[in-house]
Amino acid sequence: MTVTKPLTDLEIAYNAEMKPISEIARNAHIPEDALEQYGRYKGKIDPAKIPGEPKGKVVLVTATNPTPAGEGKTTVTIGLSDALKQLNQKVMVALREPSLGPVFGIKGGATGGGYAQVLPMEEINLHFNGDFHAITTANNLISAIIDNHIHQGNELNIDPRRIIWKRVLDMNDRALRKVVVGLGGPTQGIPREDGFDITVASEIMAVFCLATSLEDLKERLSNILIGYTYDRKPVFVRDLGIEGALTLILKEAFKPNIVQTIEGTPALIHGGPFANIAHGCNSIIATQTARKLADIVVTEAGFGADLGAEKFMDIKARKGGFHPDAVVIVTTIRALKMHGGVEKSELTKENVSALLKGISNLERHVQTVRNFGIEPIVAVNRFITDTEDEIQALLNWAKTKNVRIARTNVWEEGGKGGIDLAKHVLEVLNEPKQFAPLYDLSDSIEQKITTIVQKVYGGAGVVFADQAKKQLKQIEENGWSNLPICMAKTQYSLSDHPKLLGCPQGFTITVREIIPKLGAGFLVCLTGEIMTMPGLPKAPAALKMDVDEKGNAVGLF
Amino acid sequence: MTVTKPLTDLEIAYNAEMKPISEIARNAHIPEDALEQYGRYKGKIDPAKIPGEPKGKVVLVTATNPTPAGEGKTTVTIGLSDALKQLNQKVMVALREPSLGPVFGIKGGATGGGYAQVLPMEEINLHFNGDFHAITTANNLISAIIDNHIHQGNELNIDPRRIIWKRVLDMNDRALRKVVVGLGGPTQGIPREDGFDITVASEIMAVFCLATSLEDLKERLSNILIGYTYDRKPVFVRDLGIEGALTLILKEAFKPNIVQTIEGTPALIHGGPFANIAHGCNSIIATQTARKLADIVVTEAGFGADLGAEKFMDIKARKGGFHPDAVVIVTTIRALKMHGGVEKSELTKENVSALLKGISNLERHVQTVRNFGIEPIVAVNRFITDTEDEIQALLNWAKTKNVRIARTNVWEEGGKGGIDLAKHVLEVLNEPKQFAPLYDLSDSIEQKITTIVQKVYGGAGVVFADQAKKQLKQIEENGWSNLPICMAKTQYSLSDHPKLLGCPQGFTITVREIIPKLGAGFLVCLTGEIMTMPGLPKAPAALKMDVDEKGNAVGLF
Repeated sequence: MTVTKPLTDLEIAYNAEMKPISEIARNAHIPEDALEQYGRYKGKIDPAKIPGEPKGKVVLVTATNPTPAGEGKTTVTIGLSDALKQLNQKVMVALREPSLGPVFGIKGGATGGGYAQVLPMEEINLHFNGDFHAITTANNLISAIIDNHIHQGNELNIDPRRIIWKRVLDMNDRALRKVVVGLGGPTQGIPREDGFDITVASEIMAVFCLATSLEDLKERLSNILIGYTYDRKPVFVRDLGIEGALTLILKEAFKPNIVQTIEGTPALIHGGPFANIAHGCNSIIATQTARKLADIVVTEAGFGADLGAEKFMDIKARKGGFHPDAVVIVTTIRALKMHGGVEKSELTKENVSALLKGISNLERHVQTVRNFGIEPIVAVNRFITDTEDEIQALLNWAKTKNVRIARTNVWEEGGKGGIDLAKHVLEVLNEPKQFAPLYDLSDSIEQKITTIVQKVYGGAGVVFADQAKKQLKQIEENGWSNLPICMAKTQYSLSDHPKLLGCPQGFTITVREIIPKLGAGFLVCLTGEIMTMPGLPKAPAALKMDVDEKGNAVGLF
Repeated sequence: MTVTKPLTDLEIAYNAEMKPISEIARNAHIPEDALEQYGRYKGKIDPAKIPGEPKGKVVLVTATNPTPAGEGKTTVTIGLSDALKQLNQKVMVALREPSLGPVFGIKGGATGGGYAQVLPMEEINLHFNGDFHAITTANNLISAIIDNHIHQGNELNIDPRRIIWKRVLDMNDRALRKVVVGLGGPTQGIPREDGFDITVASEIMAVFCLATSLEDLKERLSNILIGYTYDRKPVFVRDLGIEGALTLILKEAFKPNIVQTIEGTPALIHGGPFANIAHGCNSIIATQTARKLADIVVTEAGFGADLGAEKFMDIKARKGGFHPDAVVIVTTIRALKMHGGVEKSELTKENVSALLKGISNLERHVQTVRNFGIEPIVAVNRFITDTEDEIQALLNWAKTKNVRIARTNVWEEGGKGGIDLAKHVLEVLNEPKQFAPLYDLSDSIEQKITTIVQKVYGGAGVVFADQAKKQLKQIEENGWSNLPICMAKTQYSLSDHPKLLGCPQGFTITVREIIPKLGAGFLVCLTGEIMTMPGLPKAPAALKMDVDEKGNAVGLF
């Protein structure tokens, strides 16, 4: 008997045979002059050259609160689109771009896994077509212009202590979180405190993903609030006069990227904002472009349904003028057992009672989706240690609660492992539904936040810290209350305590700060320490990476 | 009578009809599978897929010491290649990539001008194919890994005060020249002094441009010296164990970029290190790839012949195992008048005596090229204010000194304006020559520097500051003396005083510091304050940039 080592994602990706991107694009009815190739297997498409209206139906893939067990949301998103293709649907998948920084930190990609991957995975996980580099450049041009403006006389009277705009790098680099810049004497600028976020946390990333056109992009960029004057007046990018330059920097990046899944389904991968301090969805321009080209667009939102899906509905869909026609909630037996109190080391053991307890987390998210007027489908993503009793317990719960549920095995089988789920999705797509965002923009800020806490998190109410109260008043005075809310909360719990798994009850959410992001067009509510610049672990993944003699990537995943 | 405004470089570029890059590549006999398109008009070529040996002859274009009057070296380089094409030569032009940072600062591109440009100029001047972003990422991964290593226990015993590796951004941002990083308490890293250079000043840029293969790239990356331990032992990138990851980050960038001139001549544009603290030439891999594909490769080196050309011969050509077969020295009547003492505001007035005085600068560079065993050709790049008397005076000097000289008018006429120069070049290419670098690597460091000062700058000798003497001793003890010298000197003067124009006599050069760049494989000799992070001017060019309703760049140049 020979024991074979299972293939890594990278090996599976390299073994897969890719079609030229021109062929993928042709099959997707993308006009030849709308495709710009970036290498043989990647491209960009010019949305202005895609005829027609965005009419495709949208399938949103979300998940239970993430656990260290892993749920496989992106993998299911890809596998589901491949399954729909196998069922002869005209389908596209629309995903977020991976951030480069974490690639060198902890092993783990953002391009799916096993036989449900997008390709070429190593290029998508590295620089891809340069979009994040363009966003980094645009972000840092604002900073350079701010410091130069102050250095050259500070006509706008900017208070260096009240600059809220930070620099960014697409790198996990904790030493850059808090820095002092402008040292070295009078020719080197004005010393001030500053810090670097990771690029995905840049407001430009959120702006990029919410803009509906190049013109709208410029308008949003001009509205970015960068700080305040000595007499507390807001200062915007338009006061610096560089919204044109920023748009120029971003104009090529703003075209959605096209690649393919292992099974040749066209994939648009574009933008990737954080799902805590931003809204965690791929770009509106990519989703809408996909909706022009395909009858069904499968897309995902970051973290669990309490963060990504809520923001997808209340922020992205509202701005984009569309709504999801079906919502899939991905979970695993393992993840639910963790929500039921099982330690990671004990996950391989059958534990039906913990599972039943952990289902409360899933149940909360089912209710959330129903609150938006959509009947969700639960996808139970297979893991090898799942027992038949555990699965039956979950299926029984679903039956009792009248919840649609499907088992998936896309990591191992690709699209074939998602056929059952795809059939459920097709059924839901043909049902009537009454989608509505959870709150009106004209509701007061307190009302909007309370609605999210009660209808999404299942909490009792909201407490505002003094700082938040002060900022709330300032926001109202400045006339910025009419914006949607972007909650920055831990992804691990429905509450604002990362250790409260399952479905905590009766808790309140404490809003510590409210930050106006006027370019993105939302108010970020900070409910805890939100990490906007990750660090590297003791043994970073970078140590194992290499290039082999054929020029191929090694040790990427 | 209608007065028409002359077209800007950007307008000329947009009016030009480009051929698809696939056609340019086909005409250049690039195998189809070696071309990777990046959009419709840009590509990368995989050197591993280009058959044959590098046999093409190399024409190096250099210049007199730069003045505010402008010489047009890149413009002549491009125009000369177009002229050679018009003369039915199989020619390629190999240029440096422009840095993004200065684009937003002071108006002025690096893609030629008028009818001697490379296209698409706006993309080449912005992100191009992402090479500099990859270099930025690689550079900053080293920094993140260093700070993380110290934070995680500092097994290598790195002294944070003796880290010589700096972070970079491709941005003119003076406030980042001197910073303190790692602030904010024990979870945020170790506080230490640091600074940012502009990306073109990164040693990785020099490494990238001197590597002859991906394998050699990795070897050089591993040799980069990043600092010293508390007990003064050198610490290298290989000690951090990330040369594989760095190579992976750079592997796509390492493929030369292909574009076209306005007249359809294939152009390889790849790499772009500073010509003061680095060697100022495009990549060896691009030059050698071009030499496989074309009979003649026209290339340029940064600043005047005292910096770029000297380094081309003594560093790049030596490492690459080739030599220039002809050298063109570009100058203008205006520039020579400035070297003769005329102020910029007075340049429009005829001044033959100042011209004759300023010719001393040109004469020095002619001698330098002759010292390498090559007979140069002077290209007098036309400017509208040149008078016939001035031109005759210069031609007379050339006749007396037996110097080949040609007039060029490539800005206005493209290749046609470079035909006379091209004929001279073809003549020289067919003559026998005895090229040799100026010094042997086994010479002592003092000897090598003295040779450059005397044979290139025309100076009397070298003075070593105390710091340099100390470093010299350290370098000898570490066994690094056998490397070529990379002089970091002002570009404006043959001496180390930027205001000494023309051909100063009897001066000494003061070497203040000697910095080992062990990845690049040279010793940088600092002779003055060398700016490695530029600042923005009071009214940055960014303020005028925009995108029009067609999505085209506005105000880029």
